[in-house]
Amino acid sequence: MERVPPLAWQPGCVVLLDQTRLPADEVVVRCTTVDALVDAIRRLVVRGAPLLGVAGAYGVALAAAEGGDLRASAERLASARPTAVNLRWGVEGALAAALGSPDDAVGAAVAEADRIAAEDAAASDAMAAYGLDLVPDGARVLTHCNTGSLVSAGGGTAYAVVTAAHRAGRLAMLWVDETRPLLQGARLTAWEARRDGLPFTVLADNAAGSLFANGLVDLVVVGADRVCADGSVANKVGTYPLAVLARAHGVPFVVVAPVSTVDPASLGVDVVIEQRDPAEVTAFGGAYNPAFDVTPARLVTALVTERGVTRPVTGATPAAF
Amino acid sequence: MERVPPLAWQPGCVVLLDQTRLPADEVVVRCTTVDALVDAIRRLVVRGAPLLGVAGAYGVALAAAEGGDLRASAERLASARPTAVNLRWGVEGALAAALGSPDDAVGAAVAEADRIAAEDAAASDAMAAYGLDLVPDGARVLTHCNTGSLVSAGGGTAYAVVTAAHRAGRLAMLWVDETRPLLQGARLTAWEARRDGLPFTVLADNAAGSLFANGLVDLVVVGADRVCADGSVANKVGTYPLAVLARAHGVPFVVVAPVSTVDPASLGVDVVIEQRDPAEVTAFGGAYNPAFDVTPARLVTALVTERGVTRPVTGATPAAF
Repeated sequence: MERVPPLAWQPGCVVLLDQTRLPADEVVVRCTTVDALVDAIRRLVVRGAPLLGVAGAYGVALAAAEGGDLRASAERLASARPTAVNLRWGVEGALAAALGSPDDAVGAAVAEADRIAAEDAAASDAMAAYGLDLVPDGARVLTHCNTGSLVSAGGGTAYAVVTAAHRAGRLAMLWVDETRPLLQGARLTAWEARRDGLPFTVLADNAAGSLFANGLVDLVVVGADRVCADGSVANKVGTYPLAVLARAHGVPFVVVAPVSTVDPASLGVDVVIEQRDPAEVTAFGGAYNPAFDVTPARLVTALVTERGVTRPVTGATPAAF
Repeated sequence: MERVPPLAWQPGCVVLLDQTRLPADEVVVRCTTVDALVDAIRRLVVRGAPLLGVAGAYGVALAAAEGGDLRASAERLASARPTAVNLRWGVEGALAAALGSPDDAVGAAVAEADRIAAEDAAASDAMAAYGLDLVPDGARVLTHCNTGSLVSAGGGTAYAVVTAAHRAGRLAMLWVDETRPLLQGARLTAWEARRDGLPFTVLADNAAGSLFANGLVDLVVVGADRVCADGSVANKVGTYPLAVLARAHGVPFVVVAPVSTVDPASLGVDVVIEQRDPAEVTAFGGAYNPAFDVTPARLVTALVTERGVTRPVTGATPAAF
């Protein structure tokens, strides 16, 4: 069966696989305006740090085609979601290209977006190869949220390491946190794992402690929405408790992210954590619904990027990229 | 509005408020046979460690009324769920009473069940009073699962401490873990908190780490399904990660449970953890779905029973009851 890519560019249109409808339905959303793309980003039709960078870059091409104030449109795109640094990075790259080619701003933005997408695909391969070195034989690997081909123009981040381990015959089990409230693990990672033939089991996020306590986890791998100047890692809410548990049980906690995710300009304590609609959690009362949390560098065993494995992770790490 | 009690005895019938239907519907299930009650216990129509003790005791009265092998019926009741020690404890108390009064086994079992229920209600009051001493002014309290009047013939365990704190003007916020997979927090604790006028907010279980990291939790209070001989505490899955987080952030982690929950005969590592239907977690693949986890004594700040506050909690604690 042909795979529908999570994002594709057609002249004047960003075509998105609607991730809010997976795994039940594979439907695409066609965005022909900046407004439509901003809405799709906010609703998580398209999501995942690396792919948001690609989406933002193509969004600048839409903006250039629409006319009007290109910088203002770019800012609307860049601020559609606050936490993943890749979104703004992708937007700014394409904006610079468009501003530098006033005669063909659309073409320049598309070319830059294409370049970012190709670079992201290559980065996935490199991260998978580097990360594989950290996976022992017979590994039982725990992951959180969704970090595969749905979040990238390539094979993804943490999930790309997991699939590499599977191909190398090293993966005994992939433990998939369901990842409340939007169930990116139960819906998306489980869907990808089934498609890719991985041994996997879904669990309620709060059951991870029981897995650790029973010695059933050899490695934790997660992606990142932002690697901050102090080495702390902003990622899907629920990542930080896993890091604390991993440390308490002597289990390596590995972050896999492209260099575009590293943000030497922000500290972990300063990261704007998107607070989402309480209705995602419950219809029965008020809810505390942060989309991300921040894991301090001291709990991160290693950071895998397309340039290799960095450890330990400290406040000196981001500046080295 | 009149409250429907979670459990009531009518001649020949155990009447249960169906907790699987809350908060949408308040409907009762009438169990006139042991089989019906065992089924209700397994389906979590009635749940919560203290109330399971009461339910088991009245179940013995049903068994005596049915005739047949009373001991065999009692064993079916006692083993309906494996983790909460109170269920077997309640069954055995009523069984001894019934066996001791062959001329009126039903009456003797009912009298013992009534006594257990009254004792449980008194224990709730005592635990609330003792536990209140551990709650600071302006407390932001995090709890997990459901431990209020739905799990007890009285005001409950951990939740009784929270309501006492509210009445004393000390409760600034009750953080309610939604408690996947069956959402006892989002469904039941939120329902009780709204009814009781508490300030409360529901969160996805994995967002608790973010609360701790931001200094928004002053105290964790939970109930227990079993306090083991080594002082470890078996409770709803997700309790152990909270204990690890609380320790990492220097926040007290308090267990509130009646003495009937203490089991000097079992070690934490030996507790049978009920594995429930994977379909509770997901319809998309296999699932790891333990109903409980075990928290080691070193992570428990204090144990509140109806006899007072015990701390530290060690392997010597259970034998002292």
